[in-house]
Amino acid sequence: MEKHPAGPDGPKKAGDPRRPSVRAPGEALDSPAGSHVEWCKQLIAATISTQISDPALSKVSKRPNLRKFQVQVQLKDVALVTGESVQLRAQDVMYICPFSGLVTGMLTLTDYKLYFNSLEREPPFFLDVNLGAISRLETINVQSHGEDSRGLELVCKDMRSLRFAYKKEADQPELVDLLARYAFPLCKGLALFAFQYQEDFPVNGWTVYDPVMEYKRQGLPNESWALSRVNSSYQLCDTYPSLLVVPTCIPEDDLRRVAAFRAKHRIPVLSWIQRDNQAAIARCSQPLVGMSGKRNKDDERYLELLRETNGTPKLTIFDARPSVNAVANKATGGGYEGDEYQNAELIFLDIHNIHVMRESLKKLRDIVYPTVEESHWLSSLESTHWLEHIKLVLAGAIRVADKVSGGKSVVLHCSDGWDRTAQLSSLAMLMLDSHYRTLRGFEVLIEKEWLSFGHKFASRIGHGDKNHADQDRSPIFVQFIDCVWQMTKQFPTAFEFNERLLATVLEHLYSCRFGTFLFNCESMRELNEVRSKTVSLWSYVHSSSTRYLNPFYTPESGRVLYPVASMRHLELWVSYYIRWNPRIRQQQQSPVEQRYKELLVLRDEYLRKLEELSPSPPSAHMTSPAPPGPAPTTQQFTHLHTPF
Amino acid sequence: MEKHPAGPDGPKKAGDPRRPSVRAPGEALDSPAGSHVEWCKQLIAATISTQISDPALSKVSKRPNLRKFQVQVQLKDVALVTGESVQLRAQDVMYICPFSGLVTGMLTLTDYKLYFNSLEREPPFFLDVNLGAISRLETINVQSHGEDSRGLELVCKDMRSLRFAYKKEADQPELVDLLARYAFPLCKGLALFAFQYQEDFPVNGWTVYDPVMEYKRQGLPNESWALSRVNSSYQLCDTYPSLLVVPTCIPEDDLRRVAAFRAKHRIPVLSWIQRDNQAAIARCSQPLVGMSGKRNKDDERYLELLRETNGTPKLTIFDARPSVNAVANKATGGGYEGDEYQNAELIFLDIHNIHVMRESLKKLRDIVYPTVEESHWLSSLESTHWLEHIKLVLAGAIRVADKVSGGKSVVLHCSDGWDRTAQLSSLAMLMLDSHYRTLRGFEVLIEKEWLSFGHKFASRIGHGDKNHADQDRSPIFVQFIDCVWQMTKQFPTAFEFNERLLATVLEHLYSCRFGTFLFNCESMRELNEVRSKTVSLWSYVHSSSTRYLNPFYTPESGRVLYPVASMRHLELWVSYYIRWNPRIRQQQQSPVEQRYKELLVLRDEYLRKLEELSPSPPSAHMTSPAPPGPAPTTQQFTHLHTPF
Repeated sequence: MEKHPAGPDGPKKAGDPRRPSVRAPGEALDSPAGSHVEWCKQLIAATISTQISDPALSKVSKRPNLRKFQVQVQLKDVALVTGESVQLRAQDVMYICPFSGLVTGMLTLTDYKLYFNSLEREPPFFLDVNLGAISRLETINVQSHGEDSRGLELVCKDMRSLRFAYKKEADQPELVDLLARYAFPLCKGLALFAFQYQEDFPVNGWTVYDPVMEYKRQGLPNESWALSRVNSSYQLCDTYPSLLVVPTCIPEDDLRRVAAFRAKHRIPVLSWIQRDNQAAIARCSQPLVGMSGKRNKDDERYLELLRETNGTPKLTIFDARPSVNAVANKATGGGYEGDEYQNAELIFLDIHNIHVMRESLKKLRDIVYPTVEESHWLSSLESTHWLEHIKLVLAGAIRVADKVSGGKSVVLHCSDGWDRTAQLSSLAMLMLDSHYRTLRGFEVLIEKEWLSFGHKFASRIGHGDKNHADQDRSPIFVQFIDCVWQMTKQFPTAFEFNERLLATVLEHLYSCRFGTFLFNCESMRELNEVRSKTVSLWSYVHSSSTRYLNPFYTPESGRVLYPVASMRHLELWVSYYIRWNPRIRQQQQSPVEQRYKELLVLRDEYLRKLEELSPSPPSAHMTSPAPPGPAPTTQQFTHLHTPF
Repeated sequence: MEKHPAGPDGPKKAGDPRRPSVRAPGEALDSPAGSHVEWCKQLIAATISTQISDPALSKVSKRPNLRKFQVQVQLKDVALVTGESVQLRAQDVMYICPFSGLVTGMLTLTDYKLYFNSLEREPPFFLDVNLGAISRLETINVQSHGEDSRGLELVCKDMRSLRFAYKKEADQPELVDLLARYAFPLCKGLALFAFQYQEDFPVNGWTVYDPVMEYKRQGLPNESWALSRVNSSYQLCDTYPSLLVVPTCIPEDDLRRVAAFRAKHRIPVLSWIQRDNQAAIARCSQPLVGMSGKRNKDDERYLELLRETNGTPKLTIFDARPSVNAVANKATGGGYEGDEYQNAELIFLDIHNIHVMRESLKKLRDIVYPTVEESHWLSSLESTHWLEHIKLVLAGAIRVADKVSGGKSVVLHCSDGWDRTAQLSSLAMLMLDSHYRTLRGFEVLIEKEWLSFGHKFASRIGHGDKNHADQDRSPIFVQFIDCVWQMTKQFPTAFEFNERLLATVLEHLYSCRFGTFLFNCESMRELNEVRSKTVSLWSYVHSSSTRYLNPFYTPESGRVLYPVASMRHLELWVSYYIRWNPRIRQQQQSPVEQRYKELLVLRDEYLRKLEELSPSPPSAHMTSPAPPGPAPTTQQFTHLHTPF
């Protein structure tokens, strides 16, 4: 008989926790940390020399009798979007899949995507990558048996890396050159693909956010707050929106003096106001205190004015930074509000800066791609600190929401007020205002707090730029979306949109197909005519908005959400960060969701029949059998009628 | 203004991730690991000397004008079960709550529970403990201001510890003596409370499991397998059930010779068989190979017989242990199947023994009670290895289920075959057979694989026994229930029962209110007339079974469940292990569940109205609007009509 007693292999093999025959095909390759790139080059070189240069092997892997048919089918398979054009096709390219091994097929490069497909496998193998998601390109050349071969690695911004190997044909243009041209167009002085893409959608996403309408929804202007045009041509602050909300009684000259004392001229302005108690969230950048401890009477008076708008006894200034960082910022002219600010308290929220967040996500990537660290998963995850950072951001936003909900006005800032400040204001607003938890409201939230207030998307993401080591890059917006996901998990009926919307937003954060996330601020988007020359992501979303709706959604307009910001209640967003790994179950519809939708269909069917049969309309009666609790109102039923 | 700049306290306070004013009342006390008992004694002593002996303080805390009223209300509050009687009442007892501080009230001791309630708080404070859940009692006496005071700690089997302090009244019996008497009745030669408890329920839970009916459901006996009475008076194996399923062709004398070669005479017998391919799960204990490598021809022939019943080419023997432990067992006469077993393969599943599991749960307790380790939660959790053990048990059961599903018969054992073997057989059966995923089927599974096959509940739990350090104790059954919970999380529509059932089973695993989990094996339960003298837990469950039903349940009779046994898909069962902590949200009904139930009610209401209005019965039409997929059949609708 076979047995596996004690020994070097026995117990290890026997105790293999993976299922013996039910597991996903193939074994993942090990990626020794630290020597990633070197290791990859060696692997590609080895692959090239054994697979491409050995005529016997290549015959087997190419299945020559299939090739003609293959090419035809593959050409059909690649469905291009309007404005996208093929730049290169290459046969017999090998994709070195970390999950299922080598696969040979055809690579198609367009100005928007790289596609790879192969009929070697059943079902056919297919993958594509948005060129905008490529962070860097690594290549290696190998001379073997007199042939010129290439290895190519695409390191992506979306957690994965793709490795290809192919023979260099003398008459073909260099794949890597073309790839670099379309992945990093800005380096060649070319336009981003969004300026090429010209699809028509029934809804114009650029109309989703109208600041005047949004402030009107909040009850503004009113006797205390005015809509100001002081920045109409971005003359006060070039990274702020043209429309600002400031106290009614402040003269424009005073605002200009305040601007001189705030980093990048980002003065405190209103972002959101609570109707019933008039408590406001104002956002800004740090005061320019410096080493000498400079004061600015106008700034002090201005904050006092903000406080007085609703008679908050003490204005709370939330400084998102760890206090040591705030102190250190004095050395470069920044700082924080000191004792000279009367009737104010300052609270540090201990959230780290863009560099710490970037390194944290890098570490997360290291433990999930290509292989997921299994034996010490929990401590490995902890060592990335990713969830710890998520916790601190959420905890900070909860403190903001709690103050405002209790009737106290607050001021938020970090250093420049475009990263951590945007996270805090938008998350607090999501907790406080159920409108932002609808699909359209969430789009408005992103347009307002992130885009119009100048979160530097171009610098943080590096659209079309090959400088992958740029210290300005950081996944601050990804972190925000992760926080939103954590909230949707804790409140599964509170959001009109689903996880797919969040993943779609993140896909197009990188893709450069839509104009939405391009450039650093409103003034730059205006200068580059983004609204007229590109398509908005929201046009695309609304063209099939039912895909992004949460069937469990139950509107509760007055409810403030307080998520639990403790490690025990936070989860890694596996279906996003580990989505490339076939062993992680696909982001499939949950059976509970499926059952729920079936029930909705059934209920609606019965209701329709009842309406046909009954002489009197049953709609008045309809809500009566529902049990007490969050009673289904007519409004809810309207929602539930949405077809899925 | 107030501010919190850099400094020893500032940033820490500012960055406190807990919500400032929304959090649960009070602060948890720190419990330095390792010196737990000593620390507790000191705390109780300090409490006694400051609170009880200080007349000024005690006046305040006692609220004398409330006391008379308090006593009356409290007496009413304690609702006793049939057969339960009050043994002692004590006033002015202080409960030292680790979450909300000191609270003074009345303690009531019965022969079943300890109750404590206080009207000092709004709403009134109340707690109770099943005496069966008490693992050990720690006391401390303090002489202070000439008064005799006591401190008392109840260390429980269910993760919590309770601390009380009170003044010793000369005329009262000693609380701790009475407590010990009813918590550890076996040490005084008294009966367990289950023999006192005499509630009548409409369903007799003792009839839930009828082995003949259960084997009949599996299609047994048949031409290959017979129901044998060889153990009818427990003469072959005193820890096995009286009814065994063995191959038809084996003479009883052969079985006795096999028994001589298996630890505790636990011979391989059938537990479950798959109807379509006749693949069987057989369970047993280890072979008595010993250091000299003894063989037993009867045992070898017997396993060959098992294999032949369905023509499995190679019988798979799953040894649940790590291979090194299996080897080490040879020194005490045990061991594992060697090369002499023809047509068999042996696979070790690397699951650790009862001692390792006990220590793991102890470590888990240390990080969750009373305070939950927050700053290094993930690595602390990892260091307990609890989820790692859960993973290995589940992974082992998956391998078993996969073999059997593929038509191969298997034999399972560990050392004695009553701990890990029961886990593997019952979990594999739960994966393979949807009947066990119903409420009644799950009860049958526990009755069959755990109770009738002699999992030593009395020794593992230590019912009524004060020897808390007994090395025989271990949470093996708790671990099994945890594995079931993990499966319910991964397959939310596959189980008829809900999380509350699992928590209820665990509560009464310790409570000694029902006879179900008492004694070590069937023969002992028979000897002690458990069926006639005590009530079954299942009588209680079926008296309000709707409380334990999962509204999302969708029967799928043929489906084999393969949970993912990877760390990324396992969760700590927070609502069980951390249920005493008020900061952990109560195990409340999820809003999605609430919405679902509302929809069910609404649909049924419409259906009823349709039936009233429509001349023809709409039931035939009813299923048509449902989308394809797991189609709602009539059977499902019957289930969904269950009132909630």
